[in-house]
Order: sequence, then C-alpha cells, then structure tokens
Amino acid sequence: MKAIAKTKSEKGFEIMDVPVPTPGEGEVLIKVKASAICGTDLHIYKWDEWSSQRIKIPRIVGHEMSGEVVEIGKNVKDVKPGDFVSVETHIVCWKCYACRNNRQEVCMNMKILGIDTDGSYAEYVVVPEENCWKNDKSLPPEIASLKEPLGNAVDTVLSEDISGKSILITGCGPLGLLSIGVAKVSGAYPIIATEINEYRINKAKEMGVHYVLNPLKENVYEAVMDITHGNGAEVFCEVSGNQDALIEGLKATASGGRVSLLGLFKSDVKFDINDLVVLKGLKIYGITGRKIYSTWYKTSALVESGLLDISPVLTHKFKLEEFDKAFELMETGNCGKVAFIIG
Amino acid sequence: MKAIAKTKSEKGFEIMDVPVPTPGEGEVLIKVKASAICGTDLHIYKWDEWSSQRIKIPRIVGHEMSGEVVEIGKNVKDVKPGDFVSVETHIVCWKCYACRNNRQEVCMNMKILGIDTDGSYAEYVVVPEENCWKNDKSLPPEIASLKEPLGNAVDTVLSEDISGKSILITGCGPLGLLSIGVAKVSGAYPIIATEINEYRINKAKEMGVHYVLNPLKENVYEAVMDITHGNGAEVFCEVSGNQDALIEGLKATASGGRVSLLGLFKSDVKFDINDLVVLKGLKIYGITGRKIYSTWYKTSALVESGLLDISPVLTHKFKLEEFDKAFELMETGNCGKVAFIIG
Amino acid sequence: MKAIAKTKSEKGFEIMDVPVPTPGEGEVLIKVKASAICGTDLHIYKWDEWSSQRIKIPRIVGHEMSGEVVEIGKNVKDVKPGDFVSVETHIVCWKCYACRNNRQEVCMNMKILGIDTDGSYAEYVVVPEENCWKNDKSLPPEIASLKEPLGNAVDTVLSEDISGKSILITGCGPLGLLSIGVAKVSGAYPIIATEINEYRINKAKEMGVHYVLNPLKENVYEAVMDITHGNGAEVFCEVSGNQDALIEGLKATASGGRVSLLGLFKSDVKFDINDLVVLKGLKIYGITGRKIYSTWYKTSALVESGLLDISPVLTHKFKLEEFDKAFELMETGNCGKVAFIIG
Amino acid sequence: MKAIAKTKSEKGFEIMDVPVPTPGEGEVLIKVKASAICGTDLHIYKWDEWSSQRIKIPRIVGHEMSGEVVEIGKNVKDVKPGDFVSVETHIVCWKCYACRNNRQEVCMNMKILGIDTDGSYAEYVVVPEENCWKNDKSLPPEIASLKEPLGNAVDTVLSEDISGKSILITGCGPLGLLSIGVAKVSGAYPIIATEINEYRINKAKEMGVHYVLNPLKENVYEAVMDITHGNGAEVFCEVSGNQDALIEGLKATASGGRVSLLGLFKSDVKFDINDLVVLKGLKIYGITGRKIYSTWYKTSALVESGLLDISPVLTHKFKLEEFDKAFELMETGNCGKVAFIIG
Repeated sequence: MKAIAKTKSEKGFEIMDVPVPTPGEGEVLIKVKASAICGTDLHIYKWDEWSSQRIKIPRIVGHEMSGEVVEIGKNVKDVKPGDFVSVETHIVCWKCYACRNNRQEVCMNMKILGIDTDGSYAEYVVVPEENCWKNDKSLPPEIASLKEPLGNAVDTVLSEDISGKSILITGCGPLGLLSIGVAKVSGAYPIIATEINEYRINKAKEMGVHYVLNPLKENVYEAVMDITHGNGAEVFCEVSGNQDALIEGLKATASGGRVSLLGLFKSDVKFDINDLVVLKGLKIYGITGRKIYSTWYKTSALVESGLLDISPVLTHKFKLEEFDKAFELMETGNCGKVAFIIG
Repeated sequence: MKAIAKTKSEKGFEIMDVPVPTPGEGEVLIKVKASAICGTDLHIYKWDEWSSQRIKIPRIVGHEMSGEVVEIGKNVKDVKPGDFVSVETHIVCWKCYACRNNRQEVCMNMKILGIDTDGSYAEYVVVPEENCWKNDKSLPPEIASLKEPLGNAVDTVLSEDISGKSILITGCGPLGLLSIGVAKVSGAYPIIATEINEYRINKAKEMGVHYVLNPLKENVYEAVMDITHGNGAEVFCEVSGNQDALIEGLKATASGGRVSLLGLFKSDVKFDINDLVVLKGLKIYGITGRKIYSTWYKTSALVESGLLDISPVLTHKFKLEEFDKAFELMETGNCGKVAFIIG
Repeated sequence: MKAIAKTKSEKGFEIMDVPVPTPGEGEVLIKVKASAICGTDLHIYKWDEWSSQRIKIPRIVGHEMSGEVVEIGKNVKDVKPGDFVSVETHIVCWKCYACRNNRQEVCMNMKILGIDTDGSYAEYVVVPEENCWKNDKSLPPEIASLKEPLGNAVDTVLSEDISGKSILITGCGPLGLLSIGVAKVSGAYPIIATEINEYRINKAKEMGVHYVLNPLKENVYEAVMDITHGNGAEVFCEVSGNQDALIEGLKATASGGRVSLLGLFKSDVKFDINDLVVLKGLKIYGITGRKIYSTWYKTSALVESGLLDISPVLTHKFKLEEFDKAFELMETGNCGKVAFIIG
Repeated sequence: MKAIAKTKSEKGFEIMDVPVPTPGEGEVLIKVKASAICGTDLHIYKWDEWSSQRIKIPRIVGHEMSGEVVEIGKNVKDVKPGDFVSVETHIVCWKCYACRNNRQEVCMNMKILGIDTDGSYAEYVVVPEENCWKNDKSLPPEIASLKEPLGNAVDTVLSEDISGKSILITGCGPLGLLSIGVAKVSGAYPIIATEINEYRINKAKEMGVHYVLNPLKENVYEAVMDITHGNGAEVFCEVSGNQDALIEGLKATASGGRVSLLGLFKSDVKFDINDLVVLKGLKIYGITGRKIYSTWYKTSALVESGLLDISPVLTHKFKLEEFDKAFELMETGNCGKVAFIIG
C-alpha cells in the first residue's frame, strides 16, 4: 500500500510502498478514506526539536482520519467490517492513575497514532477496536476525519457551560475556527476572535464570529472591554500558542472568568500571573485531547444533527502523492483544515 | 391609577382605581408597559388553598413585567428615570444563610412582587432599585416582560452544560416552550418534548423541538429510548408538574444523567426513588427563580443578541380591563404566554 | 471448597462443598480471607421479592471481601499471586453509554459479584483482574473487606466538598456509621445523625458523631434547626431507606443545600417535592456503588493512612458455618458490620 | 487614639495620635482587640513599588483584625454594640459584573481596609456593618484576628474536595501553615509541604504535615513522585510566590490534577505552560480573598468547633508601639503569624 512516512532525520516526508498491516488481538484494520493534517504533523514534517526527540524513524505519520473497517482481529466484538468510523488517536493504558480516575485524555502511558504507532497517511491503518467511533454512513469522509480535532474544540469551548456567555477565542487557525463553530451553535454571545491572517479572518466570519480583531491593527484588550460593556470576556479560549495572545486574552477576561488553554507555545511563556490569574480569581483548564468518550458523544451530536456545519473549515483536499504541496500550503497559513482524500 | 387586585376571599380579581404609589428609600417607581401572566397568578385568581393561605387581601397582583422608570427614591444611584427595565420579582434579604452563600434565589426571607408586595397588573409599581434590570430600548415591552420567566427556563436547561446533549422536556406550557427555545439555541440535540394539548404541540414545533411526544398516544419511555439509541435522555427537565411525567421522565433519563425540576405538583408525588434516582446515579437540581443576577446576564445575552426569538411563546395580549377573558383563556391551556399591554 | 449458597427458592442459605473455580482469561483466583455481610445479602437470605426475581439459583453469595491472589488466568498482567486485594464488586461492560461517559458505577450492563456471578462467602472466588484493588499487607483482612461498603460512604459524604459544613446523616446502620467516620475525618461540623436503635446510637457516638437524635423521642427537624442556628444542615445524607427520615431530612436541609441518597426504600416514597426539593433549590445525588476507581483511591488513602479507623463499625465476626447466627443477628439490628473470617 | 500609619513616601511607619473615627450610615465603630500582620503590610512597610503606587498617604494600615463593636451608625440593623467580630477586609460594590455574578471576592471596584480606607493598627476602626462576622465570645481575640487569612487558606485547599487526596503545599509561611492545618482537618493524605527556613519547617511539623521537603536539600519533584507512588500530588497549592516552587509544583502535580494559586510573585513568572499545564490537563484556580461569605461559614465551623487549632501559627505578639520590632521580625521569616494585641 501507499503511505507517507518520516524516513530520515531531516525536513520532509517520503511516499513509500509498504505491506498492508495485520490487525492483532483487539485491533481492526481500516481502509483509510480521508486523513487531515494536524499542526503536529507539520512539526514532524519540519522535524523540529520536539519531533526529532519524540519520533522513531521510520514512522508512517497522520492521525486525524476516517475510514471503513475491512478486517477485525481476534476478540474484537463490537466493531464489524463495513463500519464507517472516525478514530480516537490516543491509545490509553486504562491502568495508570489518570486512566483509573477517568482522565484518560491525560493517560500517563499514552501512545499516539502516527507518532508512537504507524498512522493514517496510508491506504490502510491498524487501530485498537475501542478507538473506533462509528459514524453515520452519510457523513462525508473528510468531515468525519475532522471529528478528532473538532473534539478538542468541543472540550475547549465546553469545559463548562457557554450559552449566553461572551467568549474570546485567540487565533483562527483550524482549531480556532472549529471553536468558533462550537461556540456559535452552543449559544455563546458575543463571540470575539483575534487573528492577523486575512484568509483566516474571512474564514472566521464564515463560521459566524460576531467580532474579529486584528491585534496588529487594534488593541485587543480595549476592544474586548468595549464590546463587553467593560465586563471582559466571560470565557477565554487560547488557541494560538502565541504569548502575546495569552497575555492580552487573560487581561481581557472578566473577573472570575473561565479560561481554556489549547494552544501549544513555541517556548516558555512569561507573564504577570499575579494580576492576570491570581488576583482575578480565574479558573484555567489545560485542554489536550478528547475526553474518552464523552467528548465524542457531544461532537457527534453536533455534527450528525446538522447543527454544526464544519465544512467551511476544510479548505483544501489533496492526494497522498501531493503531500509536499499540502505541507507547503500549511506553512503559509492561508488555509483552514487540509485533508488527504485517500480511499 | 388602574390596578387589578385580589380583594375578596374568593375566585376572581377586581379592577380598581388606586393612588399611584411613592418610592421609598432605595426604591423606584416604574410606569408599567407590559405584564405577563404567570401560573402563580392563575392560582391566585382561582384562590386555591396555597394562595388563600399566602396572600393577604387586598393585594395588587402580577409580577412578570417591564416598564419605564419614572421616579426614584432617596439613595437610588444607578437606575435613572427613563431607564427601560425588566424586574427581578424576588426581593431578597441579603442577610440569611442562603443569601450569604450566594443562593439568593432561595432566600429564607424572600418577598415576592405581586404576592407579598403590590404587583405589576397596574399602571405603576414600586420595586427596589436593585431588582431593576436595564434593557435595550429596542426590545418590545411584552418580550421584556418575559425575561423573568425565561430566566427560569435558562436555569432549568443550563443547570449544567447542554451543548451536544440529548434533552427531554416534559410539558409544553409557556415554561416548557421557553425551555425548548433555550435548549435549541444552546446546541442541545435531540430536543424531545411531551405534551397532550394540540395547541401547545404546535407551538413546541414552532420553537424548534426535534420530537414532540403525546403521552396519551405513545409510550414516552420507549419513544425516548428509541430516539436516543437506547441511552436515554442525557438531561431531563420536568416542567409540567405532572406526576406521570416525572416518573416517565426519570425512567427515560440516561444512567448518570442530570435532572432539573421546575414544575410544581398539585400534591405529594409518589414514585420508585430506588430505581429512578438512587440506582441510576442521577443528579437532580431543584430550580426556582433566577440566580441573582448571573441568570439575567445569560438571559439578556440570548434575547438581545437576537439568538433566541421567544415571540412565538407570547400568543395573546390583553388590556387590563380584559383580565377575566385573559384568565379564562389561561384555564383552557390553549395559549402560550399571555400578557397585559398596559403603558 | 466450602461455600454458602442460595439453593432453594425460600428463606435461608445452605453451606456446600463445591469445586474450586478456575480463573479464565483476564481473571484471577482469590483465596478469600474475610467477607462482610451487606444489606443486600440479608435481602437474598430472606428471599424477598427483589431477590427472588433477580437471583438465579444455585448461586454462591457474598461480595464485600478481601483475600490473597493465588492463581492468575491468561493475559493477566498487573495482579500477581501473593497480592492482598479488596474487590470492586461491580463488573462493568466498558462499552455502554454510562461506561463510555465515565459513569461506570451505573453501567447499563452491570454484573454484580455474588448476585450475577458466584460470590465471596466461599474459600475461593474468581474475579476479573481489573476488579482487584491491591492493599497494604498490614491491613487486617476484615477491615480490607469493608473498603467496598466504605467506598459507598465516601461517595455519599464526598459527592462534593464537606469540610467546614454541617451534615445530617439519617440512619446509623453500618453505612451510616461509616458515613459518620468519613464526615468526621473530612472536617464536617457539626455531624448530626438520627437512629432509633440504642446499640447503633452508641456506635454512632463511638464513631465521633456530634449529635445523635432519636426520632421516636424528639423532633428531628426542630433539633437540626436548633443545632444549626436556624440554617438547616448544609449536607444531608439519607442512609436509612426510611420515608420519614427522607422527609424530615429534606425539611431539615438548608436552602440551596446538597443531598446524597444512598438508602434503598422498601417501596415507593411519597413526599412534597415542591416544598422539599424544588422551592429550596436543593441538589440531589443518587449514590450507588463506587466511582471506578477514583473512590478507591480516596478510600484507601483514608484507611491506610490511619486517619479513619473503621474498626468500631465491625462488631461481629463469624465462621462460614455460623451463617444462620450471623444473619439472625443482622435481622435484629443490634450490630454494626458483621464479617465472615474465612482464610 | 493611637494608630500606626504610613505618613511618608519611604520605608517605615509612624505611631500617631489621631481622633477616634465616627461610623457613617451603615457603618460600625469597632474597638480593636487584636490585629495581625499580613504580607501586604510588610510590603507597605518596606514601601515597594506596588505599595508606593497604590497607597495614598497618610493612611492608617492593618486589616486582619478582631474587636468589639462599640458604636453603630444610622441604618445598622444586625450588628450591635457588644458584638465580638472579625472583619472581612474586602469592601465590595455589589454592583459590578463580578459582584452580580456572586464573585464578590474579585469585585471590580473593591476597596480594601488598611489600603484604601483607614485600617486596624489602631485602637478603633470603622467598617461597614456587612463586613462584620460575629464570633463566639470565648474565641481569643488574636485567633479571631486570623479568621481573615485563614479564609484564604480555606479557599486555597478547598477550591474543590480534598478528603482522601494527596496535597502538595509549596511554602510554609503563615498562609502555608494555615493551609496545612486546613488540609489536615479535611482528610487530605499525604500532606507534603516545601520550605527552606528551619523555623517554619518545624512549625509545619507542629501543624501536622506528613512530609516536609527542603528544596535546597532535595529534589522536590522526585520526592513527591516517590511519596505518591509515581502518581504525583492530586492537589497542588502554591503559597510561596516563588517561581521555582511553582514550576516544581506543577511538575509534581498528577495528570488531571487541581492547582490553587494563592502566592503572589515578585515579578513575571516564566515557565513551560505546554508540558506543565496544557498537556497535563490541569485545572488551576486563582485564589484571592474569601468568598463572601460562604468561606466565613466554613472557616468559623472549623475554628469554633475546635477541629482546627491554629494557635501554633500565631508565634509572636506585640504592642502597637513595638511595630518596628514586629516588622523586622517579619522580614527575617523566623516567625509564623505576628499580631498586635491592642484592646
């Protein structure tokens, strides 16, 4: 089968011809239909410090995916050939302190598809049965491949109730755009986002943002205070991984407000934690991955009901062979989600 | 001024001509523009056991209202003549255990407008400054008069997060209809309601319910299980005050689900609390009144943003003089909210 | 091996000689050291309506237990022969809506040790590996056998924070006594309990209750209001399964208070849900079983640290052969927990 | 009357003779019995950047206090001469977004006793009636003066449930010591603290800490992991205001753990928020001040029940005239709480 893999300790990937993998006990073989590019994949493509330390080559990459189950291993009981599934990419141990306290999304022994095991930029992939989430077959494969990142947006926006509350979302990359969508369908008002890239500013509007601020052109703190009648944003979702965005966002959060941190930062952050967190009585949630599997229930309800249309976030489709073009586009930022259409 | 009052220990009200009241220290005088009928007012009209024990006659009734502030008492600092306000009808003590624990909605010394003090079925009414909630002047007065009951629906549906969750709402009276509206705009899916009155069944559809079940014609438990793929409703809001609805609703709630009880029952309820509550691990919220004032922030965000259009719930308008007609209509149930247009 | 079993559709048990069971895949064989009597076992002994419908005879009964692992089945990875374990008695499916939403304690396909599978009133028992909780070997086996019911008390008292709050616990049977112990060590003040049996009243005092009320001799509501300076109990734990206790307890709960329901009632309960739940804004938790496994972490921390001494709750020990004597004692109520010392 | 005041824009205070203040409407005059030194007072004494910008001289300082009400202003209804009270030092507006959302502890218009109004290092002080918390008269005045800082420790430790959970408290200054006391009485286990000062290490032991680590002598992260069997501390309370303590503490917090930040830092903090917060799924509470007034209920229950003995934390008493000696002692750190005994 065809697969995109990291094969050398340097920037770039390689397309290869490899054997179709075999599902072991409790595992299933999936014929991949679509697989989207995560920011993490771009890091691996670029071979930055983090990925060069984490990834053992050769490794087939990719993890945001949907596909059709074509073969099941021993002791697989609930998933059947023909099932159309999205995949939870965190393979958790169920035995560590975190798992046994129902915080599997921060499992202490977590393996990640496409990082610690061979991934989904391939014609076929093997995953544990339990990681399969069955979809309605009418769902377009590329939309189904986005349920995994959408789940992150769901947990970011919905770490607590949001309806009737003001929200600030810093950063309109794919996760920011998905967060706008979740906030919109969940009754948040007003939804304020920040972004500097014109392409993404327009996408944010398409997703229904009420106000989008360009920090290069206006003072985010002052604009948010103005929009919220001096109260500040009741909920702040940091999705950019930019230190200035973090600081302006905390400043613009209401006294006693709620914060979700999803963005990953390039290096250590430095900020006035006294004035921006302690003395404001903020509550901050670190968000990573999806709750296993409560997030998937919510995500699927929003998508399959038709309430939340995330198709504007998916801006570009490529074939596996076009991977260099896809990653070069990702580097420009002039895109939303980019997906490989495979099967 | 004209006012509708309970003047005799018997069914019915009387329209009277009484002096315009004077605001005391910390109070304001409001020219009433619209005042809607609450189920409680119907109880007082009928002079049932509860109301005959609670109300001291003569008493001007009515409490769901909006109007324009026309005069302010001593030491009133934030509300000004000309302000267009809705009114929180619970006058709380701020000194009891509940108030000092930020549960003012269950104040142990609560006074209620139109029950313990003269109410809003009148051309003018006096309320404490702090009970005024300033509205955008573009809001129609009859819609503004519904912010108070809408707040109950907001707390019922939003006692915790609702987006992406299934919800069962038993009863499509005005509060049930408002709850459907809140659930709809907050991302609940599917929204299932129960009702036997055809008029209200149609209203529920107008408010965007996904499924409306008639318990006289179908088995509610089985229908909910069918709709929710055997899981049950993740959230159950009891808004009917009907024991059968309570029992069927609890039965149809998912294991570990959340329940909000808003409806008031005619008499003691009797049910299998073992199987329906304890062994299912349910969490139940008793809901009464609005959180002071967090609910008002949410309610206003939903209404003034245009996200939530509650106008279909307001089905009939009357003049004060037509009060008998209004209450007779209320008794039939062939209506949503009914409001007096006054000023 | 020796085992106590329900063998006929009538009151009573029988002691039998049966083969030692063999652990299957993912299962372990435990040599039982101690096994305590749960109220459920008494129901099965009496062969009441519930048990006669639920239990398929013949069935070895008993589930609150501790013992030493002596053999492991295939694919058992973390539990080893020689481990001294307590046992979580709920065998859950991990696949239903409840399990996949991390509410395994209300699994929709739950099997219970000693009810749906052969239990622990025997020299050996087989359980799934994951249901084993490793204990410190210095813990007395009869104390270790109580971790399972103690977990119920932990979740009842600690459904939310309790330190510095007043608590009312209705019923001083074994679960009530354990709840007093948990409340005591967790900073609750004052701890008020109700009980009519003199033996248990004295046990409650031994466990550190601050006030114990006898509903046959005094008005519980008035006494609680007096003790709490008119505020009511901030937390109410119903552990008796008695309707009058439920009603008085709800009445004596503070406005906006928290309620945990653990007791199971003989039949339907009937009460004024308007005044006792809705209009007081109570939050009610149905409690059944232990959170899997966060409760076990807390329970073990309390017990193995020596903070919580539950030994006064264990009042009587018997040999398996003395089971009739043990169950007769249970019927009198003149005891705390009763345990079989087996291995 | 005698009073200690900041009178010049430089280090130090001055003792003065000033007129006894007069209570205005809604205010009471209190004869101060004891007033303890807060870290903030030391900042004002030293006249650091923060205090020189915030304080308008002349200003009588001090705010942690207890005393006897001796005179009441107009419209004071619940507090009476002779009442023995502690004082909530945050004077809040009740009108801003935070106050109207029941987050008065982060009121946007807050005035602080001894900072924005004349304080309690004086023979008499005037405060609003509502800020008085009536104490049992048997409580020693110096202990009563500590209810205010103790409230901070209560909220820090009890931002959620703590019983049966492991806790790490970084810093054993007065607030750290009080936090140890609260954790101890609330069933936390094990309680691990860090401190470098020998005097305070011994005090921590006196308060019942289970493990106290000296970061100058051992690796805090490794020691916590060792004590907690590799899980990390389930709850982390940062009370030192030291960046290294923050970083080590976050590192040593369990996946999915809870963090309370009470300590104020000298300057911006810099840390790896990806690995230490986001990817661990932590929940962080900024803690400042006491919830108005739920915290006071809990604090008083713990103290007046005798459950929590905070007297070991109060290590030194001085007369007002000895203020220089008192503040010099504070600068050494060889003390717990230091109080002026005044009336």
